[in-house]
Amino acid sequence: MAASGSGTRQRMVAAAAGSIRRHGASATSIDRVLSLSGAPRGSVYHHFPGGRAQLVEEAVGFAGQHVSGLIVEAAGTGSPVVVVDRFVAMWRKQLVESGFRDGCPVLAVAVESDEDHPELTDAVAEAFGRWHDLLKALLVDAGLGAGRADQLATFVIAAVEGALVLSRAQRRTGPLDDVGGELRGLLTAAIEESAS
Amino acid sequence: MAASGSGTRQRMVAAAAGSIRRHGASATSIDRVLSLSGAPRGSVYHHFPGGRAQLVEEAVGFAGQHVSGLIVEAAGTGSPVVVVDRFVAMWRKQLVESGFRDGCPVLAVAVESDEDHPELTDAVAEAFGRWHDLLKALLVDAGLGAGRADQLATFVIAAVEGALVLSRAQRRTGPLDDVGGELRGLLTAAIEESAS
Repeated sequence: MAASGSGTRQRMVAAAAGSIRRHGASATSIDRVLSLSGAPRGSVYHHFPGGRAQLVEEAVGFAGQHVSGLIVEAAGTGSPVVVVDRFVAMWRKQLVESGFRDGCPVLAVAVESDEDHPELTDAVAEAFGRWHDLLKALLVDAGLGAGRADQLATFVIAAVEGALVLSRAQRRTGPLDDVGGELRGLLTAAIEESAS
Repeated sequence: MAASGSGTRQRMVAAAAGSIRRHGASATSIDRVLSLSGAPRGSVYHHFPGGRAQLVEEAVGFAGQHVSGLIVEAAGTGSPVVVVDRFVAMWRKQLVESGFRDGCPVLAVAVESDEDHPELTDAVAEAFGRWHDLLKALLVDAGLGAGRADQLATFVIAAVEGALVLSRAQRRTGPLDDVGGELRGLLTAAIEESAS
């Protein structure tokens, strides 16, 4: 594939992710992606023979990997508490910069059941699963037992994703800040307990 | 309004809520609501002069009140821990009974920004806000300070809503069960601490 072709492809996936995080999956039409990315109409079936569903699936993968990358980067600090703080801060920044209009595209796809495209649910489960496994590994490294680390990693992702939705609906960062504070206390206590 | 007219109206709002919890707001067309409710086409603008947006707004109000009612009912037991257990159990039951296809309609509307209809975001914020205030009051009654009760109520709603999405995506109740367990421990500890 030519470099320019691959640039168009990448731009379309990023545009789809941007539309999904704001308007949801159903509202992310091919027309909207073309308009946002400036890609020519012919590029849709050239790059995405599976059409809209393939674009949505790849947008979930793209967003999932972006967040995974941030978790891996923050993991270099060695502290699960810092990693969760940065996870919260990332969503907070996006929320504020978008005027409380943009949320998590992975979650947005998760809440629209599409019986014709079960692969979308698989892509969502994979993205959430990857974040979970990264956080769990960090908690195990910090001394927690595997079972407790597993449960806490789930708890962190659930609480942060939920708080992002509450903050967006209320158009204020309060819920994300509150949940970030609670998680900080919970994780610090769990790590101290495992060390004692 | 005649009783039959009001029955049709109610059936349409319930059908809209049912469609939103499964497919999201954008995918909930007037046609889908008519098909699910069996209402005649003429009833749309008779009962909902604001069209689709009004239907979605009323569906959020309907779902929000339904959940508030369950919280109030469970509050009769006097224990915030029991109330949160029932809140989790309600979503768990719906998830399992729908084959992991139905989520929370309030959250589903929250993740689709609709610049033309800011009243939808207001309806979502009101529903979440009402659940929050009910939980907060219970926690204050259980002895917690207002600030801590406020923060914990936000935490509970965020974590449960997030866990519902994770369970739906993974097609298993594990995340909801894990989060329910964590919240039980957290609330029990907070209540004990406030009593000591």
